[in-house]
Amino acid sequence: MTANPDRAGEAAPWTGADQLCETLLDHGVDTCFANPGTSEMHFVAALDRQPRMRCILGLFEGVVTGAADGYGRMLDRPAATLLHLGPGLANGLANLHNAKRAGTSIINVVGDHSTTHLPLDAPLTSDIDSLAAPMSNWMRRMTASDRVAADVADAWRASMTKGVATLVLPADVAWSATDPAPAMSILQAPAVSKADAGVAALVADAVAAGRQVGIVLSGKALRESHLAIAGRLMRRGIKVFAQGANGRIERGHGRFGIERLSFNGDIGRRQLAGIELLALVDAREPVTFFGYPGQSGRQVPDGCQVMTLATRDADLLAALEEFAERAGAPEVAPPFDRHVPDLPVDGALTVDAVNRILANLLPEQAIVCDEAITSVGFYDHSTYGAPHDYLQLTGGAIGIGIPMATGAAVACPDRKVVTLQADGSGMYTMQGLWTQAREALDVVTVVFANNSYAILHGEMRRMGIATPGENARRMLDLDKPEIGWTQLANSLGVEAERVTTSARFGDVLASALNRRGPFLIEAAVA
Amino acid sequence: MTANPDRAGEAAPWTGADQLCETLLDHGVDTCFANPGTSEMHFVAALDRQPRMRCILGLFEGVVTGAADGYGRMLDRPAATLLHLGPGLANGLANLHNAKRAGTSIINVVGDHSTTHLPLDAPLTSDIDSLAAPMSNWMRRMTASDRVAADVADAWRASMTKGVATLVLPADVAWSATDPAPAMSILQAPAVSKADAGVAALVADAVAAGRQVGIVLSGKALRESHLAIAGRLMRRGIKVFAQGANGRIERGHGRFGIERLSFNGDIGRRQLAGIELLALVDAREPVTFFGYPGQSGRQVPDGCQVMTLATRDADLLAALEEFAERAGAPEVAPPFDRHVPDLPVDGALTVDAVNRILANLLPEQAIVCDEAITSVGFYDHSTYGAPHDYLQLTGGAIGIGIPMATGAAVACPDRKVVTLQADGSGMYTMQGLWTQAREALDVVTVVFANNSYAILHGEMRRMGIATPGENARRMLDLDKPEIGWTQLANSLGVEAERVTTSARFGDVLASALNRRGPFLIEAAVA
Repeated sequence: MTANPDRAGEAAPWTGADQLCETLLDHGVDTCFANPGTSEMHFVAALDRQPRMRCILGLFEGVVTGAADGYGRMLDRPAATLLHLGPGLANGLANLHNAKRAGTSIINVVGDHSTTHLPLDAPLTSDIDSLAAPMSNWMRRMTASDRVAADVADAWRASMTKGVATLVLPADVAWSATDPAPAMSILQAPAVSKADAGVAALVADAVAAGRQVGIVLSGKALRESHLAIAGRLMRRGIKVFAQGANGRIERGHGRFGIERLSFNGDIGRRQLAGIELLALVDAREPVTFFGYPGQSGRQVPDGCQVMTLATRDADLLAALEEFAERAGAPEVAPPFDRHVPDLPVDGALTVDAVNRILANLLPEQAIVCDEAITSVGFYDHSTYGAPHDYLQLTGGAIGIGIPMATGAAVACPDRKVVTLQADGSGMYTMQGLWTQAREALDVVTVVFANNSYAILHGEMRRMGIATPGENARRMLDLDKPEIGWTQLANSLGVEAERVTTSARFGDVLASALNRRGPFLIEAAVA
Repeated sequence: MTANPDRAGEAAPWTGADQLCETLLDHGVDTCFANPGTSEMHFVAALDRQPRMRCILGLFEGVVTGAADGYGRMLDRPAATLLHLGPGLANGLANLHNAKRAGTSIINVVGDHSTTHLPLDAPLTSDIDSLAAPMSNWMRRMTASDRVAADVADAWRASMTKGVATLVLPADVAWSATDPAPAMSILQAPAVSKADAGVAALVADAVAAGRQVGIVLSGKALRESHLAIAGRLMRRGIKVFAQGANGRIERGHGRFGIERLSFNGDIGRRQLAGIELLALVDAREPVTFFGYPGQSGRQVPDGCQVMTLATRDADLLAALEEFAERAGAPEVAPPFDRHVPDLPVDGALTVDAVNRILANLLPEQAIVCDEAITSVGFYDHSTYGAPHDYLQLTGGAIGIGIPMATGAAVACPDRKVVTLQADGSGMYTMQGLWTQAREALDVVTVVFANNSYAILHGEMRRMGIATPGENARRMLDLDKPEIGWTQLANSLGVEAERVTTSARFGDVLASALNRRGPFLIEAAVA
């Protein structure tokens, strides 16, 4: 009666929830980050009958979705989530926003009331479709248990080509009996779109004509093999940039250390100055992060043409290779030498010292999750560090660092994960430390404890307000009381130490990198 | 040039943000729970120029909106919020859902990109209107700085008559200069709708005809004066109930101890058995919380007529008084005697012991915020306790307890607030403890530390699964590691103690009630 010989609880009838679990597994989706509620208990029961699915609890939904983002960024295939009705989804939306901006594959399963219960407007009823739409690349409300297999297959394809695929699962679709669908073999990755050959020809012609051409890469175009081509394009005189925020960059010595565009209006415009034609590879046109009075948010020079060479669902490596050939780029990129950044002399710990020491000590194949928006300094040093993956805040929705690291560590159990975490944003989803402890994940979290929303103090200065008053300070400072990050980590099962000097930071970091399991360093930066 | 002589920073031009702040103050809205970002910095600057506005930072938006809910429930008038773009709103939606279900007045201010920046699709861009609609009773996107005063006045009226009023504030509306609007005096509460006299007559006729009539009260109909009428109606043979979940009930000895409907299908149907006509006073028709296979979610008996006597925006006291007269209820309610519940003998701490001891020790005019959904026991004892206000989880979106207590304590600084907090839901928004510490709020938080989503274990048993397997346990249990609530509280600046026996709980609670400021008791319940 069941499609899967591993399934426990054979006596139970096969339900839509069993089929959901099974079709996920058929597509290689074997990890489910979850925070379930009553309306999802039949899915929980189905997961319980299927030990091949690894279920990982987050104590808050922002942890669940952020972990799914980190997982998908590392493996280029989706984990599932399990969220409880509209409010559970709402709690996970901020990190789904980041995932959508990163283009991360996620199958986002949201339980809903049963079809007959929904019109009764019970207390937990809300318009899930309206909530999910802004943060989903694809969405479907499931309607019948015998359509579940097809729905999941469609969601998987959508997640692979578009990003966040949301499936709304009414409780009765989960609990209704159905015949098991025929077992599927793991599908091939969906057919991809083509790069735009016309654009490639136009851009190559511009290069040949001596016009200043630029190219902006994001998404999978920031992997080592793609970056090697980018290095060749730079040798051909093309200005090459990474988008300001990206899901994952393969970085470190031996790889082309790509320059990242700044979201700052002046800096970004300086980077792009002189470019007459800008080609986008799974990237958006560069704009400032925020708008300011009397300033344009656009960063490309006046008159610069902006063209899309390839989108997320194209074969970006082939697109870049073909374009490099057309543009007459040299066959090989130059070698990129290793250069170890100067280490700080001992003294009070600074953000710069943390960045330099970490770049120096970073283990081979580490994964760096950067939500230290206070500092953009690590990126400058990391091109000289050991080869690693660099994951950053893509959508500006703070609270991604700890959850993303959690998911990346689940995805890559043999690699060290290091989180660079601002304190203000760390407070959003610190519940993720508990999941790191429970799953014994190999994550070192460095919290930059400056006790303020430092970025907002910068914005006040930008507005010409040198000395904020009482009300502004009460909204921008995290002191009074200061947050005790080591106690906080301990309370969630994670060992921790507070450090105040560069020397001690180096020692504690080295020790944390040389052990397994989660550890938190409260970096009391000056 | 400015409408307010108290305003600091006279040199700055008067902006839409200044007008927003000023018109809020004109309507008595002098408290703003906030977590701002760059797009709201002009509003922050305006608040900074206006010391009459009290700005209270939450380290996560669920704290901000939950605090605004607690504040509005206590004062029957709105606080403002300040949320950062779509993701900031998203983080606050779960507790806005609870506020909407409670009918709480809130002016929910959500910043958005400037009108010119929005089409550039910068990283933090999202469809705020789609996100806000499901959890708002009223919504408006502001469009011009010279319309801000009118927008705020409309939002205030909407908050008073409907509940959650969301104002989306584009950055350019905030920063654009405008002429100060004429100063408003604090407006009268909006004109209210009438109770339905036709329904009142029908229901009274049914009483006279000897039919079994029931009445369900919620909202402001659960205040002492309204409850006194409810007691008279009960004497007339009418079955009187409170809705299953309510924003605030005035409770304790000397007050009519109203029976609350259960969301459980069997219990609720038993409570409503025999009722032929059910009248609703700012209440919804009783339904079960969730739907279950093969069961109806409706709780009223077959053939029972359900009629709405009065809605939220009516004068509920007048409606009840008039109905009581029509129905021939006696002039006075009987006295309600005080009865002290038996205290537990010493031994391992239980939920029941906590409930009894708290009902016994509760100070006069305490405010009890109950998110201990593990236990419904406190309500049974509390009718005998000192007069107090009882606030509960109204929308089922967990994570309201600590934030709601925070807002209630801001609203009522001279009253003791006690939070009954389940551990699983407490983990959602424990950042609120930090705000309690910063504002020195007089809140005692009792965390029921049972290390599980106990309610979901109950749902598993209900499904016939006596012994959950590995996957289910991994999603329903909070052990491995256990959460160290005292360390967690300490890390956020709140003193705490863990207790394991009834005797010690009584001592620690008495001591916590007799001091001022926040304190947390980790009640390790058996």
